[in-house]
Order: sequence, then structure tokens, then C-alpha cells
Amino acid sequence: MIIDCHGHYTTVPAAHTAWRTAQLAAWEAGGSAPAYPDISDDDLRESVEGSQLKLMRERGIDLTIFSPRASAMAHHQGDEGVSRAWAEACNNLIARVAGLYPDHFVGVAQLPQSPGVPIANSIAELRRCVLELGFVGCNLNPDPSGGHWDSPPLTDRGWYPFYEAMVELDVPAMVHVSAVTNPNFHATGSAYLNADTTAFMQFLQSDLFKDFPSLRFVIPHGGGAVPYHWGRFRGLADMLKRPPLAESVMTNVFFDTCVYHQPGINLLFEVIDVDNLLFGSEMVGAVRGIDPETGHYFDDTKRYVEALKLPSDDLAKVYEGNARRVYPRLNRAR
Amino acid sequence: MIIDCHGHYTTVPAAHTAWRTAQLAAWEAGGSAPAYPDISDDDLRESVEGSQLKLMRERGIDLTIFSPRASAMAHHQGDEGVSRAWAEACNNLIARVAGLYPDHFVGVAQLPQSPGVPIANSIAELRRCVLELGFVGCNLNPDPSGGHWDSPPLTDRGWYPFYEAMVELDVPAMVHVSAVTNPNFHATGSAYLNADTTAFMQFLQSDLFKDFPSLRFVIPHGGGAVPYHWGRFRGLADMLKRPPLAESVMTNVFFDTCVYHQPGINLLFEVIDVDNLLFGSEMVGAVRGIDPETGHYFDDTKRYVEALKLPSDDLAKVYEGNARRVYPRLNRAR
Repeated sequence: MIIDCHGHYTTVPAAHTAWRTAQLAAWEAGGSAPAYPDISDDDLRESVEGSQLKLMRERGIDLTIFSPRASAMAHHQGDEGVSRAWAEACNNLIARVAGLYPDHFVGVAQLPQSPGVPIANSIAELRRCVLELGFVGCNLNPDPSGGHWDSPPLTDRGWYPFYEAMVELDVPAMVHVSAVTNPNFHATGSAYLNADTTAFMQFLQSDLFKDFPSLRFVIPHGGGAVPYHWGRFRGLADMLKRPPLAESVMTNVFFDTCVYHQPGINLLFEVIDVDNLLFGSEMVGAVRGIDPETGHYFDDTKRYVEALKLPSDDLAKVYEGNARRVYPRLNRAR
Repeated sequence: MIIDCHGHYTTVPAAHTAWRTAQLAAWEAGGSAPAYPDISDDDLRESVEGSQLKLMRERGIDLTIFSPRASAMAHHQGDEGVSRAWAEACNNLIARVAGLYPDHFVGVAQLPQSPGVPIANSIAELRRCVLELGFVGCNLNPDPSGGHWDSPPLTDRGWYPFYEAMVELDVPAMVHVSAVTNPNFHATGSAYLNADTTAFMQFLQSDLFKDFPSLRFVIPHGGGAVPYHWGRFRGLADMLKRPPLAESVMTNVFFDTCVYHQPGINLLFEVIDVDNLLFGSEMVGAVRGIDPETGHYFDDTKRYVEALKLPSDDLAKVYEGNARRVYPRLNRAR
């Protein structure tokens, strides 16, 4: 079985996106959001049959851990109520898709975050998604400002109430920022990768996983810059008198395989223990084209992983076993 | 000949650092900075003989392109006058070291940047350093705020007056941030790498090098996350309908070899054209320890490059030729 731990619902029906536009316009105007539109099951099927599901079938991916479009979370827009209503709408849609295709999609929650709003206020939606909608994890935005980085680091005690809920529910978080308003950054080209690297270094500097031994994070996009600079991070841990990474961070942190060329995947598997790697492709979305150097989609990461010719036990870990360990609620249904 | 394009003067005499502390304290108190202290030539010799020069001799590095300590630039501290006086003091010290060891050190300027101050105000110090002190380049900070990223991107026209001066003087800039006050970031662990990735993506999105065909940037730390995600960047260029990277960015952008483990160096040389790579080690400073996995210093990047067993022509480019092409003023003296 092949589980893709990193898929976003980037092909939502137009009515869903139109409602978001209307919601924000209403908020700007000081009014109330319109009623959420009727979206039929057929609309939902159509939205995935020709894209996500088609690609999964073509590539031989059985199950995608599926979350709302990351760039559209846009936690910096509107206010706390706007963000909550938007997260609920997005999560409900994910739950419906997972309900229509229970063998192919399982949900991961978008959280209703807003700049300056305590993360404890996000717990109710996490609980609803996990306990009522059957979700197996969440995406946690370390910078809900949209590229201004004015929240405390992920290791600040302000985040602890949320981590307590994650531990109680036994769900991991993928560290995932969203669209940016800061013109210095491009969402998928720099903001995402920077956030990955930033989160890893925060974990390296802290005792977070002493406080929460069973807390788990997936750092997407192959861990940002981290595996490429693995020697730098090992050396910094040493300089900062921190324990070795294997003992202090990699006990609780996992990387996906969203690295869009063979040399990058080769490096990732050379330096990171196979127990810390989860298959992922971040499709459909971040990079949609075909690599002229290979003739295949950039995001067809299964090809790169296959080319490694891993021992079958290792391949099974990357494709399935590690995901079941990091997202144990996967095992309740599947 | 082996040229290290990325060395910082991290072992300055204590009197220099003490003056900086006094300068900032005076500014805080609304007074004037004390007179800059007398620092003897022997003090300067002592500051490099046992560290930078010793390591260069041990490793067989002939010449270091030497700039003030990057983390101490701290452009966010004080005001424009404070930043100018500090940059002048730092650059003067570099010039003296280069004067004492003309075969081993050549200067690169710290710029007197400050948040919100036009970059045009930095041109005078660049001119002084190049025309009077014999420097061959500068370090340009894309985020003088110290990790708050509130300046315009490097491709904004606000930077153009400075680029005109760089082109006229025929000197490149290394993109290099400094210490951070934003608790989300660690200077050498995430802020530096994030800035590298950010700058590359800015260049990818813009026509900067159409406007300045001879403008040259070195992106240090092996290009941040870029080579590891080379497929992602190639794919993004395609998605954004930008020209191929080889035609639009890599004509003017170069990476150093400050990647502190063999797999990272292997990847760098596998995906990036050898004409775009300059030998560098970022020593003494960013990571000072010995890698328990190899028994050698993490920052002894020459070992990793040697292990590639490059053809001698390629090795000569990485060690010397590319540096002479990117920093042509090197050829005036050496």
C-alpha cells in the first residue's frame, strides 16, 4: 500500500472559492457572510476524478492524506471568526471527499488560526475534525501573519495547550505556512521552504520533545534546506551544546519526500534515517509541469523513490509503515 | 592557487568589539561614541595568526576574500550614523589586515545599511572601500531589520542606484543577512539559509539581470535550499513562465561551497554548473567543531571538494578561475 502524506485539495469546486471571496468581501464591508453554497457530491467527484484521483491512479498511490489548499488558508485575512468559518468550510469539504472515496482520501485539518489569537482557540476545530470527521492530523501554521513572522516560535509555551490536545488525540501536525503578503517571499518558492528550515532550527534549540515525548511533526518539502545542510545542523547542535539530532529532534520530527528531482531525493535518503521519511508528493499544485529533462511530472516523486532501489522493508516504511506510525489514527479505519 | 570567497573576520581584537559596545551605549544615552581605540599591527597579527591564517595554511588555502563578521553587522542597531561609523571601523580593520598579509587577504566591504534608509546612502562607503582600500566586493544585506523582512525585495527599483555603482566599480555583492532580533530565527541556523533561498526566488521572478546584465551576486551557504530543491525551482520558473534558470538567473548568480558535509557538496556539484561555483568555507565561525563522523572540521570544505575528484580544469575554476571572473578586481593586485 502506498500512502501519500501530503496532498492538498487544490481543485475545489468554484462555488467554494466564490464563497470565500464573498465571505471576505462581507467582512470588509462589515456585514455577514452569505450562506455556504450547495455543492453536490457530483461536483466533488468531478473536482478530483480528473486531477488528484487520476494522478493517484496513474502513479499507483492508494491513499492520500488530504488537507485543504495550503496557500488558501490565508490566516492573515479577515479576523478570528472569518478564519474559523473558512477552516470549517474547508474541513467539511475534505470530510465529504473522504466520505465519497474512503479508500483514497483521509482528512487532515486546516486550523482556524489568526495573528495574535491564542492557539488554544484552535483546539475545538481540531477536536471536531478528529473526533467527528475522522481526520488523522492537522496543518499547523507557524506564521499566520502571511510572511511577517511576528508570532512566537513553535517552541514557545504559548503553543503548549494545542500540543496537549494533539498528544491527547494522538495526531501529528504538518508544519505548513500559507500565502504571503510580504513581497520578499514567494509562497511555494521561498516561504514554504524557509518555514520548514525555521521550524527545524527551533526544534533543535529547544527541549520541546522532553516536555512532549509523543508530540510529532512532519516537516514537509523534504525538510526545507535541512537535509542539504545536515552537516551544518549537526555542527550547530554540537556548538550549541544540544544533544545529537538523532536523540533530540529526529525522535519526533519527520520529513516528506516532496523534493522534485532525483539528486535531491538521493541526498534525502542518504542523510536522513529511513524511519523519519514519509512518502509525499504535494500534488496537485505546487509545481504542476513536466520536467523537460525527464519527460515526467516534477511532482511524480514516486519515480524518484523507486529509482533508489531501496530494500523492500525500507520501501514499505516510506510508503506505508512510517505514515501509520506518525498518523496512528490511520489504522482505526484502514 | 586556492581562493576562499567567504571568510569573515570573527576573531577581531577585543578593543574593536568593546568600541562597538561603547558606541551603541553612547547612542542609547544620546551621547557621542568614544574615540576609536588604538589597535596595533601586532594585535591584528595575533588575531589571525592563530585562527584564520593557521587554518588557511593547514588546509592549503592561499587567499581569503575577507569581510567583517556578518552577524556583527547588526544593521538594525543604532541609526544611520551609528551604522556608518561601525561599517567604516570594520572595513578599516579589514583593510589593515589585508595590508599586513596582501598575499592572504583581500577585502570585501560591510555596508552602512539601516532599516528604512535608502541604499543609495551606502554608495559612498562602497566607493571608499573599493577605490581607496582596494576591496573587491561587498556584502549586501537584503533584510537590515534583523529578521523582520520589512524592506523591499532585492529586485525592487529602490536598490537600483546601488546596483549602478556596483556595475560601474565592477564588483559583486554577496547576499548576506546578519544577526536577528526576531525570536523565530537563529542567525546561522535559519536566517542565513532563508535569506539565500529568498534572494534566489526574487531573482527568478524578476528581470533584474536584463536591466543589469553585468551585475553579479554570490549566494552563500551553497545557495541556501536552492540546489537541494533545484527541480522545484526549475519547475517554478516554468510555471511562472520565466526563462530557464540557466538563461535568466545563473548568468549572474553564483553559489559558494559552504555546505558542511560530503553529501551536500556532492549534490551541489551534481546539479549546479561548475562555472557557477566558488570555493568557500565561511570560516572561522559559523560552525566551529569537528564532525565526529569524519574526525575533521565541519567547515573544512576543501576536503569535500577534493573528494569529488573533479577534472583539473573544473577544480581550477572552483578554486580560482570563477572567483577571478566574479571578482575581477582580484586581478588588479594578484
